[in-house]
Amino acid sequence: MPTIYEQVRRFYSRQMQLIDSGRVEDWVETFVDDAVIANNANPAPARGREVITKVVHRIVADAHERGLVHRHWLDMLTVDPIDEDSLETTFYALVVETAKGGTPGLFRSTRGRDVLVRRGSGWQVRERYVTHDGS
Amino acid sequence: MPTIYEQVRRFYSRQMQLIDSGRVEDWVETFVDDAVIANNANPAPARGREVITKVVHRIVADAHERGLVHRHWLDMLTVDPIDEDSLETTFYALVVETAKGGTPGLFRSTRGRDVLVRRGSGWQVRERYVTHDGS
Amino acid sequence: MPTIYEQVRRFYSRQMQLIDSGRVEDWVETFVDDAVIANNANPAPARGREVITKVVHRIVADAHERGLVHRHWLDMLTVDPIDEDSLETTFYALVVETAKGGTPGLFRSTRGRDVLVRRGSGWQVRERYVTHDGS
Repeated sequence: MPTIYEQVRRFYSRQMQLIDSGRVEDWVETFVDDAVIANNANPAPARGREVITKVVHRIVADAHERGLVHRHWLDMLTVDPIDEDSLETTFYALVVETAKGGTPGLFRSTRGRDVLVRRGSGWQVRERYVTHDGS
Repeated sequence: MPTIYEQVRRFYSRQMQLIDSGRVEDWVETFVDDAVIANNANPAPARGREVITKVVHRIVADAHERGLVHRHWLDMLTVDPIDEDSLETTFYALVVETAKGGTPGLFRSTRGRDVLVRRGSGWQVRERYVTHDGS
Repeated sequence: MPTIYEQVRRFYSRQMQLIDSGRVEDWVETFVDDAVIANNANPAPARGREVITKVVHRIVADAHERGLVHRHWLDMLTVDPIDEDSLETTFYALVVETAKGGTPGLFRSTRGRDVLVRRGSGWQVRERYVTHDGS
């Protein structure tokens, strides 16, 4: 039985790979129905899977049209229990961007804080707050 | 007893450090004798330790002559069992490059898929397929 | 009970977040009183918490004055026991730097070697040697 820390690492690995491969419908299922995503660069948080899906579809489509590959890296992870079925994480996330025929660069550096809740044998994000460095 | 996931992380940490420190002979022992390495930027896969060693010696020597230090970072790791003695991994890998007196940059961003097989108490790579972003 | 490897990963996640958020007094407590930090770019090692604190306060203040956010990433971690209460680690560390309104870049790429010692239920750094790539 993996520790909760390992479960959470694996959860994030999968979540990052889903978004970067454009599988938005699978990716959004890593969030609860009424999840909230907010960041310091945008005053209005995205509430609920429907809104989140719309926003992220646009971001993914935009990168695709411009021939850009994005890779989300997440680490420097801390995991602290809130109660039996929920926990708080903090982490850094980087987005590496590569244009067709180009060399990779850093598109964004952030730190984040999530609340995760149990769902079956796994986890889902209930709240995410991301701070974009430089904003 | 570490989980298989942890074993695999530690395996990759060691493998990346071996290649970056130029220990090609030790590095190639992290592959089975008839291992295959392929990537999307090169139609001909490298088959077997002898060929792989030759290719990688050239890459390492070339970087060394140009005064470049390479650091391979691998993460966003997923590990799925194939059977009792083999497993499939997916991951991202970055190569950070630093020239003498220079500042570091990203040389390459990739995602990869490996098949690992048990060897004694550890693991070896049987197949590796790497997709270079931007190619 | 997490493995020692997992304990060490979590230790470093916390240590990196402390330094990047400017909490120098909390960060320095992740070192033993008479810890030594040395690197290849500087002939004189920093000995003891008092000296280390002074040096790091200056680095943190300097970045802050110039409006720079630093994020330390540490991985490709290996952990080997020395004895029951101490262990040696090797790792890579990157510093990502973002200026106000700017895009992130790599400020520094390094590899490191630490000696960690047990302290209560956790760990502290006794010795750190960092090699800056390109120096």
